[in-house]
Amino acid sequence: MDSEVDRYTASTPRSAELQAEAERYLPGGSSRGTAYFAPYPFFVERADGHHVVDVDGNRYLDFMLNATTYVLGHSNDRVVEAVREQAANGLSYSTPHESQVRLAQALCERVPSVEKVRFTNSGTEGTLNAIRAARAYTGRHKIAKIEGGYHGNHEYVSVSVYAPLDALDPEEPTSVAEWPGQPPSVVEDVITLHYNDIESTERILRENAAELSCVIIEPVLSNFGYLPADGEYLARLRELTTELGLIFIFDEVQSFRLSQGGAQEQMGVIPDMTTFGKVIGGGMPVGAWGGRADLMDLFDPTDGPVVSHAGTFNANPMTMVAGLATLDQLTPEVYERMNALGDILRAKLRAVFDELDVAVQVTGIGSLFGIHFTEERIVDHRSVLRADRAMQQKLFTGYSMRAS
Amino acid sequence: MDSEVDRYTASTPRSAELQAEAERYLPGGSSRGTAYFAPYPFFVERADGHHVVDVDGNRYLDFMLNATTYVLGHSNDRVVEAVREQAANGLSYSTPHESQVRLAQALCERVPSVEKVRFTNSGTEGTLNAIRAARAYTGRHKIAKIEGGYHGNHEYVSVSVYAPLDALDPEEPTSVAEWPGQPPSVVEDVITLHYNDIESTERILRENAAELSCVIIEPVLSNFGYLPADGEYLARLRELTTELGLIFIFDEVQSFRLSQGGAQEQMGVIPDMTTFGKVIGGGMPVGAWGGRADLMDLFDPTDGPVVSHAGTFNANPMTMVAGLATLDQLTPEVYERMNALGDILRAKLRAVFDELDVAVQVTGIGSLFGIHFTEERIVDHRSVLRADRAMQQKLFTGYSMRAS
Repeated sequence: MDSEVDRYTASTPRSAELQAEAERYLPGGSSRGTAYFAPYPFFVERADGHHVVDVDGNRYLDFMLNATTYVLGHSNDRVVEAVREQAANGLSYSTPHESQVRLAQALCERVPSVEKVRFTNSGTEGTLNAIRAARAYTGRHKIAKIEGGYHGNHEYVSVSVYAPLDALDPEEPTSVAEWPGQPPSVVEDVITLHYNDIESTERILRENAAELSCVIIEPVLSNFGYLPADGEYLARLRELTTELGLIFIFDEVQSFRLSQGGAQEQMGVIPDMTTFGKVIGGGMPVGAWGGRADLMDLFDPTDGPVVSHAGTFNANPMTMVAGLATLDQLTPEVYERMNALGDILRAKLRAVFDELDVAVQVTGIGSLFGIHFTEERIVDHRSVLRADRAMQQKLFTGYSMRAS
Repeated sequence: MDSEVDRYTASTPRSAELQAEAERYLPGGSSRGTAYFAPYPFFVERADGHHVVDVDGNRYLDFMLNATTYVLGHSNDRVVEAVREQAANGLSYSTPHESQVRLAQALCERVPSVEKVRFTNSGTEGTLNAIRAARAYTGRHKIAKIEGGYHGNHEYVSVSVYAPLDALDPEEPTSVAEWPGQPPSVVEDVITLHYNDIESTERILRENAAELSCVIIEPVLSNFGYLPADGEYLARLRELTTELGLIFIFDEVQSFRLSQGGAQEQMGVIPDMTTFGKVIGGGMPVGAWGGRADLMDLFDPTDGPVVSHAGTFNANPMTMVAGLATLDQLTPEVYERMNALGDILRAKLRAVFDELDVAVQVTGIGSLFGIHFTEERIVDHRSVLRADRAMQQKLFTGYSMRAS
């Protein structure tokens, strides 16, 4: 590692200067925890296709693509052109713009469970509003989520996201606050479930059904290395939520990268509501939630909404045109090719680690993947935590520091 | 009103069609409650300076400027150029971009109480994180806000924002849920205060100090027609929060339009933390919070943050360059001229209503203003509610329907 760091430091003097300057004005030098790695992240000058170029002229192959956002790579011609053209006509307005209707139409047509949709500025704001709809609809306020699942960073999804093993009850899924000063009632109101464990999940949902509004889940769980849920688990969750009168929410902020209809199409399990982000804005700030019309109509302002929803930049035309230009290019053939490339990547990664005789599990589906240094089968939060995370960090850091 | 509506309907056939189509995919046809007015809002084609043009070619004088966002008017040349240039180099990246450092620097230099700052995608996300910092710092979780104050739409600021008179205790400021299914603990954890009433405010803060983390307030309260807080009230709040060990948060998402240093500079009261939005992104999605370094360093990832903060589009370079191009043009002379125009507008509005013999109060400061149909002095949420709001709605709607 030391020689990697030396090499990186030697080739990134301008990034080092900018980081030092950035730390004077921004805690840690940036606005995203994930944007930092030691000794300092490189500062981007420009990005094109699957490459980013830093301020010292180093060129990197980009496997992150802004946290899975860029399905077509950076600076896609049609997306850039759409954004540049819109900019000349205004960045955002107080009243609607047609592009919003077109992007909403595209989502409703691609995802049949989405009868209506509403846009906002981040995945965080998407899950916030989907959960709010479930609460307003059922009149109940508790929610159930997967232990270790990430759904943005508003209060009620900030429970047991990165909880360490020693904070967890060995016998039961455990709700743990993510930071000091978090209201204890939030932790009490969020029921956690073991991913892929239908027996405990069913028991816990039945015990809490009278107070629960919804179950929210990523069908492909990002924090577990994009681990798809077992088909049987997901199907049973659908049956149970219907039986118990709970709203079933799929967080497809990342998994919408898998097919025109998202993970729900691929896996054949249909939620009541779905949240979106990343891909659908083409690289511009975006979030959305959609689903059954009776749930979405809670936000309808035309005859006094049950739930009001404001936001100065919601559905701004810059985001809408970038999203439209992206979805337009995402034909079934593009997904097929992209998912096949993902299969090849996972197979080659496994082959490399086999050759090196390193115990590894490569998880993922389609173009999404994760690497875990362990012999244990990855099934949930705890098996992820038991893998060698220091080794994973080394791989990430070593890789991040390698210009191509 | 009927003839106004007929006139509007006759001149906006394409907007009517788009609204009908929009309602198939979006509840009420859009993603913002405020974007709707009956019978339907006009759809924007383009915007330039202080005008917007709709899809039927009608041209409107724009007093909203996307909820106070555009200080320089729509489609400012330098802002558009900055955005178009950045678009060619990428819309967002996984690692930092220099533009973030420059915008952070500009804010820290303009607002001395902001020692460090962090960007996010909306004012909602800004207040969410400022409150989270106060909780993590103090270890206490209750918050205090003004009855009727708006700070975005996450859970803990969605208490007593639009609460009607009959839901309020006549004797005391009252915490009321904003929608059904909202967790009762949220309402219990949010203490409400009467704006500008120092006696009850002091009593309530003292009673709850042991459980309170912070007081959040707009120094120019937008929901009350941009009513500036009484200087004495604000100064006393500053003393009290210091004495009681509470974090004092100014929500300057809108009032940062008043001067280079915001309302805090104009009013001479300095908070511990400040939230930003609108203006600082130049028309692109933005939010931010900043303040004392010891509070902001809770988010510092370089030696393990106390509070983690992620977000795919936080500080994206499109927003940062638009914000920078805007702040660069906001010299003291520009603010002086803009604020003087606001004074003239308020004076002329008062003169017109005097001439019409209509009882009106025109509130506001600088380029921000509100109109209330009442003889009662507007001081807080309840006096706002007692004004003739149907009349206000008629004025807004009638005006909105008038092409220039």
